[in-house]
Amino acid sequence: MELFNSYSFIGCEHSFDDADVVMFGAPFDGTCSFRPGSRFAGYRVRVESYGLETYSPYLDKDLLDKKVCDSGDLELPFGNKNRALDIIYEYSKQIIDANKKPLMIGGEHLVSISTIKALYEKYPDLVILHFDAHTDLREDYMGEPLSHATVIKRAWDLLGDNRIYQFGIRSGLKKEFDWANEGHTYLNKFDTSTLKDVVQKIKDKPVYVTIDLDILDPSIFPGTGTPEPGGIDFKEMIEAIELMSNLKIVGADVVELAPDYDPTGVSTAVACKVIREMLLCL
Amino acid sequence: MELFNSYSFIGCEHSFDDADVVMFGAPFDGTCSFRPGSRFAGYRVRVESYGLETYSPYLDKDLLDKKVCDSGDLELPFGNKNRALDIIYEYSKQIIDANKKPLMIGGEHLVSISTIKALYEKYPDLVILHFDAHTDLREDYMGEPLSHATVIKRAWDLLGDNRIYQFGIRSGLKKEFDWANEGHTYLNKFDTSTLKDVVQKIKDKPVYVTIDLDILDPSIFPGTGTPEPGGIDFKEMIEAIELMSNLKIVGADVVELAPDYDPTGVSTAVACKVIREMLLCL
Amino acid sequence: MELFNSYSFIGCEHSFDDADVVMFGAPFDGTCSFRPGSRFAGYRVRVESYGLETYSPYLDKDLLDKKVCDSGDLELPFGNKNRALDIIYEYSKQIIDANKKPLMIGGEHLVSISTIKALYEKYPDLVILHFDAHTDLREDYMGEPLSHATVIKRAWDLLGDNRIYQFGIRSGLKKEFDWANEGHTYLNKFDTSTLKDVVQKIKDKPVYVTIDLDILDPSIFPGTGTPEPGGIDFKEMIEAIELMSNLKIVGADVVELAPDYDPTGVSTAVACKVIREMLLCL
Amino acid sequence: MELFNSYSFIGCEHSFDDADVVMFGAPFDGTCSFRPGSRFAGYRVRVESYGLETYSPYLDKDLLDKKVCDSGDLELPFGNKNRALDIIYEYSKQIIDANKKPLMIGGEHLVSISTIKALYEKYPDLVILHFDAHTDLREDYMGEPLSHATVIKRAWDLLGDNRIYQFGIRSGLKKEFDWANEGHTYLNKFDTSTLKDVVQKIKDKPVYVTIDLDILDPSIFPGTGTPEPGGIDFKEMIEAIELMSNLKIVGADVVELAPDYDPTGVSTAVACKVIREMLLCL
Amino acid sequence: MELFNSYSFIGCEHSFDDADVVMFGAPFDGTCSFRPGSRFAGYRVRVESYGLETYSPYLDKDLLDKKVCDSGDLELPFGNKNRALDIIYEYSKQIIDANKKPLMIGGEHLVSISTIKALYEKYPDLVILHFDAHTDLREDYMGEPLSHATVIKRAWDLLGDNRIYQFGIRSGLKKEFDWANEGHTYLNKFDTSTLKDVVQKIKDKPVYVTIDLDILDPSIFPGTGTPEPGGIDFKEMIEAIELMSNLKIVGADVVELAPDYDPTGVSTAVACKVIREMLLCL
Amino acid sequence: MELFNSYSFIGCEHSFDDADVVMFGAPFDGTCSFRPGSRFAGYRVRVESYGLETYSPYLDKDLLDKKVCDSGDLELPFGNKNRALDIIYEYSKQIIDANKKPLMIGGEHLVSISTIKALYEKYPDLVILHFDAHTDLREDYMGEPLSHATVIKRAWDLLGDNRIYQFGIRSGLKKEFDWANEGHTYLNKFDTSTLKDVVQKIKDKPVYVTIDLDILDPSIFPGTGTPEPGGIDFKEMIEAIELMSNLKIVGADVVELAPDYDPTGVSTAVACKVIREMLLCL
Repeated sequence: MELFNSYSFIGCEHSFDDADVVMFGAPFDGTCSFRPGSRFAGYRVRVESYGLETYSPYLDKDLLDKKVCDSGDLELPFGNKNRALDIIYEYSKQIIDANKKPLMIGGEHLVSISTIKALYEKYPDLVILHFDAHTDLREDYMGEPLSHATVIKRAWDLLGDNRIYQFGIRSGLKKEFDWANEGHTYLNKFDTSTLKDVVQKIKDKPVYVTIDLDILDPSIFPGTGTPEPGGIDFKEMIEAIELMSNLKIVGADVVELAPDYDPTGVSTAVACKVIREMLLCL
Repeated sequence: MELFNSYSFIGCEHSFDDADVVMFGAPFDGTCSFRPGSRFAGYRVRVESYGLETYSPYLDKDLLDKKVCDSGDLELPFGNKNRALDIIYEYSKQIIDANKKPLMIGGEHLVSISTIKALYEKYPDLVILHFDAHTDLREDYMGEPLSHATVIKRAWDLLGDNRIYQFGIRSGLKKEFDWANEGHTYLNKFDTSTLKDVVQKIKDKPVYVTIDLDILDPSIFPGTGTPEPGGIDFKEMIEAIELMSNLKIVGADVVELAPDYDPTGVSTAVACKVIREMLLCL
Repeated sequence: MELFNSYSFIGCEHSFDDADVVMFGAPFDGTCSFRPGSRFAGYRVRVESYGLETYSPYLDKDLLDKKVCDSGDLELPFGNKNRALDIIYEYSKQIIDANKKPLMIGGEHLVSISTIKALYEKYPDLVILHFDAHTDLREDYMGEPLSHATVIKRAWDLLGDNRIYQFGIRSGLKKEFDWANEGHTYLNKFDTSTLKDVVQKIKDKPVYVTIDLDILDPSIFPGTGTPEPGGIDFKEMIEAIELMSNLKIVGADVVELAPDYDPTGVSTAVACKVIREMLLCL
Repeated sequence: MELFNSYSFIGCEHSFDDADVVMFGAPFDGTCSFRPGSRFAGYRVRVESYGLETYSPYLDKDLLDKKVCDSGDLELPFGNKNRALDIIYEYSKQIIDANKKPLMIGGEHLVSISTIKALYEKYPDLVILHFDAHTDLREDYMGEPLSHATVIKRAWDLLGDNRIYQFGIRSGLKKEFDWANEGHTYLNKFDTSTLKDVVQKIKDKPVYVTIDLDILDPSIFPGTGTPEPGGIDFKEMIEAIELMSNLKIVGADVVELAPDYDPTGVSTAVACKVIREMLLCL
Repeated sequence: MELFNSYSFIGCEHSFDDADVVMFGAPFDGTCSFRPGSRFAGYRVRVESYGLETYSPYLDKDLLDKKVCDSGDLELPFGNKNRALDIIYEYSKQIIDANKKPLMIGGEHLVSISTIKALYEKYPDLVILHFDAHTDLREDYMGEPLSHATVIKRAWDLLGDNRIYQFGIRSGLKKEFDWANEGHTYLNKFDTSTLKDVVQKIKDKPVYVTIDLDILDPSIFPGTGTPEPGGIDFKEMIEAIELMSNLKIVGADVVELAPDYDPTGVSTAVACKVIREMLLCL
Repeated sequence: MELFNSYSFIGCEHSFDDADVVMFGAPFDGTCSFRPGSRFAGYRVRVESYGLETYSPYLDKDLLDKKVCDSGDLELPFGNKNRALDIIYEYSKQIIDANKKPLMIGGEHLVSISTIKALYEKYPDLVILHFDAHTDLREDYMGEPLSHATVIKRAWDLLGDNRIYQFGIRSGLKKEFDWANEGHTYLNKFDTSTLKDVVQKIKDKPVYVTIDLDILDPSIFPGTGTPEPGGIDFKEMIEAIELMSNLKIVGADVVELAPDYDPTGVSTAVACKVIREMLLCL
């Protein structure tokens, strides 16, 4: 007889020590300005991942051939942004210090800043590939400098110009687009059409990939805080990941799945496949 | 401290007198033959428009640079089609007489006839661009000459041959398609592929644009009375609006959002963006 | 022709200056530990209140005979608990200083502390009637002293023993129940059976009523963060309000409606009626 | 092999000629002022009735022992109230003239007036038992004398004072309550507590029973146009039917199920049971 | 830092060897005749149990003071009823042979027969308390003797007359009610009013409690295969458990939660509390 | 007056004897490993087909010009896979023996094997076109050789190599893909790009078309047991049917619609159109 009550992401049952990649959840959504609930993403992708196969016909690779530990969700205090970010930073550091690669599951996009900071300390020449519907380049949001709407600006505070590549962007203030285009970030509106060239350009650099799943069109990914029509479809997302699979990716995150706005379960299924493909790239 | 309890469409807070464009709702769905509920579209797009930015990266324009008044929803009697149509006609006339352009939010498609009639009286050479999944060319529907399924035929009664251009059509009686093809309307099946040529042809005419949102594929727009698979995607819709942005549009409507069939909120988000882009074209 | 695009709560269209009661929303849900989303309660009750009549057959009173201002929702910063609480406190003070009574719509239960504090400063002998499924008496929650799970303890910090009466309580830590029963609060488990006696006892005191709507059974009120089976039904809630209608209520709140967990709209309808009855009591 | 594609209400497969009771649907919801969709009630109760047993443990009777014809839904024109009411009247008359009893499934409450009129012509001493959350006693609604909100007033136009008994009423204008209490109807607020006495009083009269299902509390019956918290529970509804089972009921209707607001299917299950019990009473 | 990716039922983290009670899931719903999906109950109650407290204010007991192992869900073959029942039987036997008490989470009601059989072999004088909306006394269902609609008849095949007590029953064939009343089972229609007397009568016997959650009214428990209006409310369920808490219960099950028909999550919350209370009784 | 209570698929009202094509439902989902409920597909497509027109603008054909009988759903025993498959086989045989063509509506994919078997007996050179997201080529699934995950392998047991063409496949075990590529089936990953060539190649053969609707992208078809992102869109599906319309199709099925996972009704609308187009091809 077999019984199961542990719900690791499918095929990710290695121990922390044994693993090359450590997946973990950062269930924080405290600065979300529209529909909250990305805190529930971690457990939902674990549970629903059992509808996946471990084999990817896209990359022709199998998760069972990787050493991945799914260490679960961090326990984060509700309503305390600073403490939450500190805990995420500490855990990211612990993974990096052990020479493993982190794959973080959000939570809202703000959580990325902690992992980026921890990786930046190790890789000062870190480059960020940012997939998103939104610019996330505000200086502050309603007076708050730490917000899901400012997170890439905060990353830029660390890395500076010419280090951040943005794809799929289709919503923001005019002044955010203008600021990006003044040479601060490389901003590819609407799609990923220039990714191929970017990949060539950064192929020797350590890369962090941050995927805000709302880059996807809400037809296939409604389950997110701020759905933005006009996004890329699932195939373009997969092709982007295939393009990135030869890069030197040192860490990644997949954020902004809000499962309670996903009555059909399809958004969660999409997130599971994106995570599987990203794990296969790390 | 700031408080808000007025829910105008985002960026549309000019007064009637001050405005160049007047947006209003016509919450009537009394002849809907399948799933009713488009009456709720007006207030829902107002409320949800706060998830939008006023800036369009498609048209590179900002609503804040336009003078738009959102005058709210008309109060229409339930179950009295004729009185409802009269009230819509009167209000459209009031807007047109003040040399402003109307942007009406349905309600069902029948409401368009009132605005068309009011505009036709001012512009006898009016041309109609009709975006829809359905022909809407029946002579009557279950004995009723005024119905969402007959509205374009009623417009033809006013305008006559060669004045109505239909796009995206993929459902109707065989005899409706045949009648259109006898030269009564220009009917572009399935998509908007000939719009570019049409735009060239009518570029000097006063144009009314009527967008039945069910032209969109139900993958991205399920929240409507009669969803028809096989529609255009959001990008094709946006490209169509971009094409029309240089026309002399004198009025427009966006109809058939039924928010109660939109559990994820995505259809409403789509409607909001279509309305924003149309407002930027007027 | 009549148009509407202002969505005040039905029958509450007096100006601030003219009003005796000021209703406002506090859309904060940042410490919610389970299902967030109570931030959306304010606008939803305004919009859905149009399904209500202004006349209450329970109290045989009509909102049209009261002077109520619905001043809308406060604009609160996302993810900054302290600033949000300060803003709520300031606005409550402004109402109280103008000799009006506040009726606050949550948001999560934590927001009550700001209004309570403002009222306590004016009425040092303030008594609290607390309707809830949960004790809310923790000293801290995951290290945070300000939380929806600690709010009544924070109120006790101000008021001290014998000033807080709790009804409907059916969930909490054993030690919270024990602490209450050591004489710190009066805790009525499960229902409101002792309310009649309490009303007698406090009939000369200034009273604050805080209604966490999850006191209601989730059969009639599923739309909340942490639904707890075994609650009171709507009739018991109404009877409690009838009992309180002769008290000297100086302020009140109705919190924890999370409309996105209310697919049928019934929870919102319940909240609307509770608010109407409370307004008629103030 | 057995196949099925006919969806009569369970146990109601007699032919019109053979039947004592004729059940039919009147799928009209054109004057509904809030959430439309009661047009879908007929087919939904047919399909879902297969989850029912034909045996009622309440009345200890079995539908298989009755002769009921389920003749299906009438085909009614959308958006033409007068024609729809005429068709319903004609079909009701056809049933009554054949010495059978009608059981109509709404649609909105307005449809009742047609069956009442047809029965009143045969039974001038007809008495109406009206179960509802709403008074339905307006003289007109937004200028329309024929509306779901005026239907009982229209019945009173026919029958006059002391012939209409209303139960469960908990919403309406103050002046509707006052008008009823001037002796025009017998209005039992909130519940059915006086039904027993009424049944005694009218036991020799021909009785029409009109059940607006929104008399039920929305905890058990959310799927209706205007849910009103504070209604009777299912057991009180069943007990009322048991009380009426010895009356001389000559016709009945069950109206205002709107299945699209019933995501769990429970409202439809309730409607099915109420219909089964009513059929067993006829 | 704390992380979690194991989702045992709250407070049930003892090892099998250490435990006095073993909770497990039997995710089988293959004979369900209406709405399937009870297979998903096990993991959902585990995940959602984190919204519970371990302390019961009803029984004034805490799960942390019991030794319970939640061993997870059995892995059962889809579409093979006999193999599934065998596996459940074997695991139940393993628990019983280790002198522990099983608490099984369904799945559909048919799964109870395996645990009953295993316990009956140890306790030949076993008595069954059966809580349900349905008789479940058919000899076969569409030719199948093993079905959710026959399970209590199959239990009677083992135990014989006067050993099975049924509560809450409100749906079945007339002949099932008649058969029960011929003295084969004790059948309490509609509610649990005679439970107190039954508890007295069987207080020295080994008792198996099988709770089909559809005994509850669908107002509070819509998430089940065949919801039956007219059930008991949550308080009556809790009172029944309190009454049973002094019996010599040797095993129990809680079946027929179908979480996908529970859009608000309330049914799962109810199931969690019923499970907590039953665990505290074992 | 017209009434309707028969819900045949629109335009399919011929008698069995009169028809050239017989459509029937096989409401079996007993081996479904993830989300069950495809049993409800038959009646739902019948009811919802009334939102369709009988005319296809894709094929420029009208269902009213075909002779189709919709004979309804087979009555199948719940939880008995072998008996269910036998009944489907017998009915398929009855259709084929009467020189008619079957169009079966699932149910889960396993039901196809019965129709395939019956057709194979008449057409030993039968060729299968298989549209699906999944390989369905396992030898057994959790020990069961008859399963939705093995059905094409079971068809291969009958037909052997080079007779089965698979399109749209994007999920399976690595060894299933490898086995197919060893020459056992022709497997077209992800899309239908090679269908045109295949159609040429098999144009003289009797063809069975089995469409597992999960070949479609879940953006347009969420309502299925195991949604797999990355599927074909509706237009590619229609184009595939157009390509096949000149083949000698001797039977077909459309399986795996699970309407309860389709809150917007769009999946059912898609299924209806696919069925209409397939009927027009037969």
